[in-house]
Order: sequence, then C-alpha cells, then structure tokens
Amino acid sequence: MKTDIQIAQEARMIHIREVAEQLNLVEDDLEFYGKYKAKFSDELWDKVKDNKDGKLILVTAINPTPAGEGKTTTSVGLGEAFGVLNKKAVIALREPSLGPCFGIKGGAAGGGYAQVVPMEDLNLHFTGDFHAITSANNLLAALLDNHIQQGNDLNIDTNQIVWKRCVDMNDRVLRNIVVGLGRKADGVVREDHFIITVASEIMAILCLAEDMHDLKLRLGKIIVAYNYEGQPVTAKELNAVGSMAALLKDAIKPNLIQTLEHTPAIIHGGPFANIAHGCNSVRATRFALKLADYVVTEAGFGADLGAEKFFDIKCRNAGLKPDAVVLVATVRALKYNGGIPKTELSSENLDALEKGISNLEKHIENLQKYNVPVVVTLNRFITDTEAELNYVKEFCEARGCEFALSNVWEKGGEGGIELADKVLAALETKESHFKPLYDDDLSIKEKIETVAKEIYGAKNVTYDGAALVAISKIEEIGYGKLPVCMAKNQYSLSDDPTLLGRPKDFSIHIREVYVSAGAGFIVAITGTVMTMPGLPKKPAAFGIDVNEEGVITGLF
Amino acid sequence: MKTDIQIAQEARMIHIREVAEQLNLVEDDLEFYGKYKAKFSDELWDKVKDNKDGKLILVTAINPTPAGEGKTTTSVGLGEAFGVLNKKAVIALREPSLGPCFGIKGGAAGGGYAQVVPMEDLNLHFTGDFHAITSANNLLAALLDNHIQQGNDLNIDTNQIVWKRCVDMNDRVLRNIVVGLGRKADGVVREDHFIITVASEIMAILCLAEDMHDLKLRLGKIIVAYNYEGQPVTAKELNAVGSMAALLKDAIKPNLIQTLEHTPAIIHGGPFANIAHGCNSVRATRFALKLADYVVTEAGFGADLGAEKFFDIKCRNAGLKPDAVVLVATVRALKYNGGIPKTELSSENLDALEKGISNLEKHIENLQKYNVPVVVTLNRFITDTEAELNYVKEFCEARGCEFALSNVWEKGGEGGIELADKVLAALETKESHFKPLYDDDLSIKEKIETVAKEIYGAKNVTYDGAALVAISKIEEIGYGKLPVCMAKNQYSLSDDPTLLGRPKDFSIHIREVYVSAGAGFIVAITGTVMTMPGLPKKPAAFGIDVNEEGVITGLF
Repeated sequence: MKTDIQIAQEARMIHIREVAEQLNLVEDDLEFYGKYKAKFSDELWDKVKDNKDGKLILVTAINPTPAGEGKTTTSVGLGEAFGVLNKKAVIALREPSLGPCFGIKGGAAGGGYAQVVPMEDLNLHFTGDFHAITSANNLLAALLDNHIQQGNDLNIDTNQIVWKRCVDMNDRVLRNIVVGLGRKADGVVREDHFIITVASEIMAILCLAEDMHDLKLRLGKIIVAYNYEGQPVTAKELNAVGSMAALLKDAIKPNLIQTLEHTPAIIHGGPFANIAHGCNSVRATRFALKLADYVVTEAGFGADLGAEKFFDIKCRNAGLKPDAVVLVATVRALKYNGGIPKTELSSENLDALEKGISNLEKHIENLQKYNVPVVVTLNRFITDTEAELNYVKEFCEARGCEFALSNVWEKGGEGGIELADKVLAALETKESHFKPLYDDDLSIKEKIETVAKEIYGAKNVTYDGAALVAISKIEEIGYGKLPVCMAKNQYSLSDDPTLLGRPKDFSIHIREVYVSAGAGFIVAITGTVMTMPGLPKKPAAFGIDVNEEGVITGLF
Repeated sequence: MKTDIQIAQEARMIHIREVAEQLNLVEDDLEFYGKYKAKFSDELWDKVKDNKDGKLILVTAINPTPAGEGKTTTSVGLGEAFGVLNKKAVIALREPSLGPCFGIKGGAAGGGYAQVVPMEDLNLHFTGDFHAITSANNLLAALLDNHIQQGNDLNIDTNQIVWKRCVDMNDRVLRNIVVGLGRKADGVVREDHFIITVASEIMAILCLAEDMHDLKLRLGKIIVAYNYEGQPVTAKELNAVGSMAALLKDAIKPNLIQTLEHTPAIIHGGPFANIAHGCNSVRATRFALKLADYVVTEAGFGADLGAEKFFDIKCRNAGLKPDAVVLVATVRALKYNGGIPKTELSSENLDALEKGISNLEKHIENLQKYNVPVVVTLNRFITDTEAELNYVKEFCEARGCEFALSNVWEKGGEGGIELADKVLAALETKESHFKPLYDDDLSIKEKIETVAKEIYGAKNVTYDGAALVAISKIEEIGYGKLPVCMAKNQYSLSDDPTLLGRPKDFSIHIREVYVSAGAGFIVAITGTVMTMPGLPKKPAAFGIDVNEEGVITGLF
C-alpha cells in the first residue's frame, strides 16, 4: 500500500494561480510562495468583503481512539466531493506543527486520496507563519527579561512571570530550565520554561484576531507577569506590541493550497486544542465564506473539546453562524469505545458496537444543544460489516441526524459524494439556529460547570484551592466575562482518559485556572497538560531524508 | 533628511519576474515569495551551469569605525552603476540577522539610494532561510539530548557537549542556562547555551556547501560532543542528517531581490564574520557568476577579517578566482584612525589623515599579497575637502591602486559611475593571479601565525595552554589540514580594539581553538567573542510598528 507521502508526491499539482481562479481570484490577489502555495494579499479583503457568505460546515468527531477516525481526511474528502458535484467549495484547516513531525507522528494533511498538498511543505516550514509566531513570542520574552535587567521599572516579580519562551520542536529538556546564569551582564537568574510554538498565546491570538488592528489590541493585552503588588503586567507596558505585530505582518495573511483533486484549501493557524481553542484562524474562515458557497472546516480532538470551543469561543468571538456539523466516527472506534482492544476490532461485534455507540450518542446530543443540524458519517474500513453499518445508520436517523458512509481515503471526492449529498440535504431542509452554550455573563465557575455537566456529562465539578484563588483573581482584574477554554484529555468525555463510551457519575476536577487575556479566554485545566512534547527512542526524524532533487522521504 | 526605510518605501519596485528577466530567467526558473522576492528553482543550476563565468569583484573596507564606511552601500551602488553603464551586473550579499533589528542597529540593506529592497522583508523573516537554520540547529540539539535521555549508547560526556541551541533574537538570559530540570521524563540536567542563529555552524555550512549532497556530507561531520574516551561524536552518529537536510531544502536555494534601481541582487546566507567566514553562500556567488558579466560581492568587517576569510576560506574552498577588490574608506574614518574623536571629524585635518591612512596602507598591502588588482574608493561626505581627497588619491595611486570617489548613498548608481569605470579599467588592464595566503599543508599554528603576521602585522603569537591542547587534539583527530577562521575584534588590526591606524610590535593571543568540522575550518579565538547579543535599555523594538496596511515603520 502506498504511504500518504507517496500518494501526495505522485499527485500532479496545478499552479496555485489556477487553484485561485476557481475562487475568481487573480494573480494580484495573491502572494505566491513557490508555485503551489500562496498568501492572500493585504488588499483582497476589501475586494471580497461584501460578497454573500457561503455555508459553514464544521467537521468534528467522537472522542479519538487508537483505531483512528479520520477527521481531517473526511474534511478534505468532503471538500473534494463538493467539487465532484460542481459546487464551489473551500476547505479551511489548521496548519500542522513542525516539531511533532520529527517525533512519533508524521505529517498532518489528511490521508490517502483526501490530502492537501504539497504535504511536505505544509508539514515543514510552510509559509513561515509558525516561525513568525515563535519570533514574536521570543521577542516578548527577551523584552521582558531585558526590562528586568535594565532596572525593572514595572516592578515585575520574577517569581510571577507567566510568559514562556517557545520553540517549534519536541525538546523535553527545555520544559524546565534556569536562565540568566553567568555574570551581571548575562541577565537575572530565574526559572523559565519553553513551550512548543502551537501552545503560545500568540498562536491563539493570531487565530482569533479580526485584522491587524485587533491583533495589536490583543497582543497588548497579553499578561506576561505580575508585579510585586500582584497586578498584571502586559505586553503593552513592555512596549512590545508594534515590533511583535511587525513580525506577524505576513503571518496574519491566510494561506492557499490545494487538495489532491485541486479543491482550494485555506490553511491558517494551528492553536493547541486543550489550552487553546484548536481551530484555524477567524480570518481564514471569513475569507473562505466570502469566496465559496460551501466552507468545510474542522476543530481539534473530539466534539467535546473541538466543537465546543469552535462554537463557544471561535463562533462567539467572531459572530460566525455554522450551518451544519458533520460528526465523524468509525465502526472500529465505536467498538473500541465499547471495550474491545485494538487488536480485535476487525471482527464483527454488535454487542461492543451497541455499548460503544453511547459515545456517539452523547456527541449527537451535545451538538444538538447548539441548534445546528448534525450529519453523522462513518469513515469506512474494509472490515466493517453490513450489520454494523446498518446499526449505526438506524441509530443516527432515530436521533434526527442525517447519516452517510464515506470512503474518501481510498477514493477521494468520489468516496465522499454520499456524505456531500446528505450535507446538502441537511442544509436545504434543516435551518441552523446556532447559539452558544452559555452566556458571557455567567460567573467563571458557572461557565465551567455548564460545559462539564452539559457537554461532558459530569455530575459535579471540584476545584483545587489554587484554582479557586485564580478564579477570584481573574474576576477581580476584570476578565470574568470571557468564555472558558477547557483543557481536558481528549480520549474520554471525563477527565480520566480510561473512561471510554459515555461515562456517568463522574466529577471533573479543575486543577489550574488562568486567563489568556490577549486571546480572550479563561483556561481551565483538568489533569496535566503537556505543552512541550519529547522525542521517542526512535524518533521519526531518523527516517526522514531529502535527495539531490529536493524530494523528501519518510515524512509519512 | 529621509531615513533609509522612507527612501526604500517610496521606491517603486518592479515585479521580481521583471528583475529576473534582466538575467534571462523566466518564471519557471523561480519560486516567488510574494511579488518582490524569489528563490532560484532546483532546476536552474543545470540550465546555467555551462555559462561562462562573469568577473568576481569583492568589496571590502578598512577597519570599521564609529564614523561609518558604507561597505554594503558601496556594493549596492557599484552594482547600480554597472547598470547605468548598461553592463549586466548582479550583487551578491549576505542576509541580515533578525534579532539585532530589535536591538541597537536597524536593518542592513545598504543605505540612502543604494539599498536593496524590500528592506523590511529582508530584515525580518525574508524567505525563511534563517528560521530553517534555527530549526535544523535545534532539531540536532533535541536529538542529542534525546539520545542521552534514551540510554546514551554513544557514551556522550554531558560535560563535553559542544553543540548549542540557537535563536534569532538578542536574548542575553539564554547565554548560560541549565536545562533538563524537573522529573526523570524531563531530561538529563546539564549546562547549556544559546547562540544567535547566525553563529550556528549550520549557517556556515549552508554558505559553503556546493549542493544538497555536499550539504549533507557537511552536516554529518558536525561534532556535537565528545564521548568519555574523548572521541568526537557527530551529527551523523545521531542519525540527524536527513531530517536536518529536509529542513534546509528550501534554505539552500539562493534568493533574488532588487536594488532601488532594479539591479538584481542575490541575497543568501549570513554567517558571523568572527567565528565563521562572514560571506554570502558559495551557491549564490556561483549562480551570480553564471548569470551576469559582473558580480559584486562583499565580506564582513574590515579586510583583515572579511577579505582574508573570503580569500582563504570561501575562495579556497570553492575554487573561486576573484578578479578585483574594491577597498572602501572614508576620509572621516581615516582621520578617526589618526586619533581624532568622532565629534571633530568634520574639519579638515591633513595631519590626522596622514597618520590614519596607515590603516588603509596596510590593507592595500595585504590585499596585494593575494595578487588581485585593488581599487580604493572613498565614500564621499559633504565635509571632505579637496585637499583631503587629493591626498588619499595620490597615496593610493602611488601604491599601484586605481582610485575613485563615490557618492552612491546620495545619488545611487550615478554616484558610482567613477568607481565602476575604475573597476572596469582594473579588470581590463590588470590580470588577477589570485592565490590564497597559505597552504593547507601548514600546521595549524603556522597558519595562525601566517595570518597574524602577514595580515595583522603582529610580531608574534601567544597561546593559552588550553588552546595548545585543542590544536593537538584537532590535528590528532584528522582536521589539521583545514584553513583557520580567526575570531578577532574588527576595530583594530591587532587584538586590542583601541589600537587604531597600523599598530606595530604587538602580539596576538590565541585564547581558544576549536574545529567546525562541517563548515570545514578551525576557529582560533582571540579575546572574547559574543555569540548571543543582548538588548540595550531602549531597544529599537520600542520604535518599530506596522499599520493596518502592513506598512512597517521604525526599522531604519
């Protein structure tokens, strides 16, 4: 069987100019990055902003399992299927992180015949957006430490610095470090930490900012530390905003590439889906809506994290109104949720399916709370039986959802026609009355508890003492009206990754709470969150190579 | 008076496609990065490699002073002047470093009407080359620490790790750090150091590599540490070569931009001029020679460091044969070398000029040792008097050099016509018989002493004990045949920055010696070398901004 990178490299890409022509764009609307990548020019928004918005379709999934669900693959395949049906569609996705490509996973660009290309570029430096974010993040850190070194006029408490340096690399030794060693000229000694670039608040800011003006406002609000009086010190007070924004002047422009079937794909931004909101940029989504009739986008992890944040953070923030949701599952993953080990998923097992489908059931119920039509799709595997497929179909239809099989990994757009038809049917017959789950005006604890009970199905929420103190502090400094961004393991609806299916009678325990004032959300952390991954014993880097002609291998 | 960025932003740039047309290149030979930047495609070399080489002209200078000499400005202006004379010329320069733009200095792209543009892009992320180098550098570091974490099969002595992490930012607190704190999963605790990206050996490697094959060979030779037996451990042994090369697949392609007068400028690579060789890439120079009749290039710092390394490292390494050298001075800088403080340089002072011209004299003598014709140019200031200008002219002509005034800062190419004419005259009437200063076969100490005595004018060379041990070690492990890369302060011919003019009877003291096995040179360090700058109390970052239209200000 061919690997994803082999399929991608065999593809005949068309010049990005031709991809853009499908969206009625001309060369002057673009800034090329080689022949197959482009950014939208600064002037394009004015040209398209009065266009009528297309339909916004979110692709989300059940809780992820080792069996694989194929959310990105489905998003890409659905976009391609719209193309087969002669509909004007665009896909809007996140950019993948560079660092993890050298660790366990390979690239992230869909799979099989439902990929975006050039996948090597996308997974490596792409158009430099993440490097720009890294630079802006680290300029702020350098200005912060320099402020302390030069006299500390802002009275920053070096034990209360919250801004961290970042690097787009899996590098565990940078998790906990001591900086500033040496002589007086070498800075003030303190404990510091590196995070991976996608975990930087600047990534979340870039993805939520409306435009350069809003970007600068948000950058200015970043809390970098607290002073000895306990008051926040911001990036604005460090005079860091203009130069950070200058570093981000191109990164703020969405990128255009293509799928294997030449469907336009807008790829922009990639925030973490736990301590941040896990969606591509608002600007990318807005451009997509202006340029096409159907916009397929996705959110990180399962629907409990990804869709919830897409709705309650991104859509609330930007005033977006999603028109339909596609919920992706596989028979294998549902059986895994029913307690079957990974090695035994290839045999028919209706009992396990019946048990594990409770996970899908809960996600359907959750999505329906947002008043958006739901289409469930099963990403087909060769081992799925008719009885299993029918069982899921009937289960979904009984709950008012459209249902479709899809086989885009193997067949590209042709494999997604049934799904595209059902999405079109949902858009025509069912009106979306989207509303977020909770009001801004609720207290922070009420917001956390609403998500925990309504979405996760928790019985109650408990808090560490420090989390309660932090909540009071956040409300005191005026950020209590922001939405909450829950950081929870992605594998379970609960905060215990081993509880599969639809856990009941569980508590959610909030360990830590802090505000990302620039991004505009309050992060509530359950369990531990890894913001700097490490490399395994045999990292993927060992298998990656490039030949004399610049062809990359091993980035699967 | 307009600032450089104002002049640059008022310029009407032409599309990079049109710039390339001057070199008989078509769109398919390029990979655009927006409308005004491009990289050469992987296929271009095969198309041009059999072209006849143009003439290679190195621009160098006397020792730098606070008065300013204008070496890059002269390089750009000379290229523009060839254009005015309807000669097919290309400029080949280094890429500037991002970090220092936020510190004391602003950008580095020439000045006045002799600039390369777009200067904001060039000074910020440009085409991402330096970010790619940062990533490759830090991937190697992560793989190194991961190797230790996963069992340390190579027996690496954590007290003898020589590979450092890097960041393209002035960030003094990262000079000396401790990494790996925390729990067992967070890595092995050790002392570490960050350097600025331009100081990374990978930067030097990228600039000396012939092609991807050679790049990979060189990356493999990088010595990252020594094991407990004292033997070197290389990047190849860490299995890091393929993935580092994949990260560098686009960075290895030279970049094309334009001057304010649309002269093509190939800008590629930017290694430090002390611990590395301070020249643009060999690939950029080779492409330039194949694409134009006249190639103007430059080397970092004064001729004692820059030209010496250009000749003895870059040209030796790549088999390049320079055809002429332009030596840049100013009357002000010569008077400064004659002992006059910066504030008094505006008055005529023939005594000081006569005293300070000894610096120019020594550089002329040095350059003549390489058997390349020398053209001296005075970059004119309004305060220069006829008597001063005539004195320098006669001084140079008496020593067999062509001489020309130039005024390219104010007048662009028109201000460089006299210089261009003299360069053309030198190329026509004087044949270059370039040869490096010393043979590969000399011992390391003999090479160091040849440079110190012949170029710097030192009486003798002394060594720290550790430096002598290191020299023996380098010869023992088989790297004794490499050329030496001297790290010395740039302000004086000696290793004491306060000794201006032409110091005599001084010793050069070698404090540290190490091998950059991938780059292919032995670094000999006099004094201290700063490989991670800091930010001043009021960093340039405070004045940098970008507006809604993406226009950057404050990057002067």
